[in-house]
Amino acid sequence: MASLILKNPHSVLAALQQRPQDVIEVRVPRQPLSQGWSDAIELAMSNRVSVQRGVMTSGGSGGRGSKAKGGGRESGAEAIVRERQPVELDELFASDSSKGLWLALDQVQDPHNVGAIFRAAGFFGVRGIVMTRHKSAPMTAVAYDVASGGVEHVPYTVVTNLRQAIDASKEAGLWVLGTSEHATQSIMQVDRDRKWLILLGNEESGLRRLTTEHCDELCSIPSLGGVDSLNVSVAAGVTVALMSLPG
Amino acid sequence: MASLILKNPHSVLAALQQRPQDVIEVRVPRQPLSQGWSDAIELAMSNRVSVQRGVMTSGGSGGRGSKAKGGGRESGAEAIVRERQPVELDELFASDSSKGLWLALDQVQDPHNVGAIFRAAGFFGVRGIVMTRHKSAPMTAVAYDVASGGVEHVPYTVVTNLRQAIDASKEAGLWVLGTSEHATQSIMQVDRDRKWLILLGNEESGLRRLTTEHCDELCSIPSLGGVDSLNVSVAAGVTVALMSLPG
Repeated sequence: MASLILKNPHSVLAALQQRPQDVIEVRVPRQPLSQGWSDAIELAMSNRVSVQRGVMTSGGSGGRGSKAKGGGRESGAEAIVRERQPVELDELFASDSSKGLWLALDQVQDPHNVGAIFRAAGFFGVRGIVMTRHKSAPMTAVAYDVASGGVEHVPYTVVTNLRQAIDASKEAGLWVLGTSEHATQSIMQVDRDRKWLILLGNEESGLRRLTTEHCDELCSIPSLGGVDSLNVSVAAGVTVALMSLPG
Repeated sequence: MASLILKNPHSVLAALQQRPQDVIEVRVPRQPLSQGWSDAIELAMSNRVSVQRGVMTSGGSGGRGSKAKGGGRESGAEAIVRERQPVELDELFASDSSKGLWLALDQVQDPHNVGAIFRAAGFFGVRGIVMTRHKSAPMTAVAYDVASGGVEHVPYTVVTNLRQAIDASKEAGLWVLGTSEHATQSIMQVDRDRKWLILLGNEESGLRRLTTEHCDELCSIPSLGGVDSLNVSVAAGVTVALMSLPG
């Protein structure tokens, strides 16, 4: 199983909490550390994870999603973490509840967007995420770090054929909701008392036509201003918030 | 006035629509163009803006928010656009309406986040954005391109002293709402029938204490999962959506 070098202490903390056996080593410089990295070291030591202080690290920044860059004090801190394993489709959709939200990303290509979607999904308690294998951002360290722990809290699966995954979700009792700026139904009109698989499309072209044809319903977020579309991670956050927060 | 090199056809189109006199030149390669750049060229020509075809451009990509990279066909297309001028505080808060939303960014440092916030603000009809001068992302070409037209639709101002801007907003009849993951009031409980200036804090540290002390109310977005915070641009989109979309 491949390993990732994570630079955001919040993504490292979440990995230590959820699966400490997969954290190979935490490496920090000698200078004073941020609260996030201090917490990570403490948790690592209590889980008998290797901690190296003052060693050379792989360098570079944690990318724009890293919490490290805000303060700058912990530059060079990082952790070596094994990738989280995807789950099987039927496991992803298994649920005893009559409600709940799942997401499917149809060729979302930017790892920053994938990471921000995982973070929002983890925040709003999304049950699982389906990703397409082709023309999609892979689950890189950037995605983990931008997700700020979201990858540890939301199970995911990677599929070759999104239509088969949609069919499997329906068999598992989910309804399928496509999001499109061209849909006439507002998201405010969607029945919240169901289990929904919410489909989000590519940054440039949105959902593929064949994908929309397999949805039970389509909806859009109504624009109230001069800009007619949202960044896909903002659209994901808004959609999940509107579908899940108690009114 | 400084000029920017924009790579996202949607940010260029919005500039051509809102202030064509500030678009100095559109430069595209000879190969087939995306719909976005084709529209931009048409609008440029109808506004007597210079269009160069097949010339060398400044190269590079439009950054991760650029629409250009999805298709890849229009690599090298760009436009030279003068910066949009900030407005004065009293002009920003002028409004005859009894409702409306404004945003204030308290040291938001990532131009991608600033751009995504402008995009969401333009989408949801936010009336204006206050930015702090120090420790904040400047309005770079990346911010314009990620905003995908949002900078053209939302007036903004840059202030040295956020507290003075908060005071000015109160004098103009606005209420001031601070967002903080530590606030006990849920955003769902906030009175929507008011004019609100919504404060959003730094990516790492949130709102400064002195900023929160000048708010009329504080609120948080309730977390329903294992992750306890959102990316600031997602939080901005969720907050504005919940405060403005008809239920």
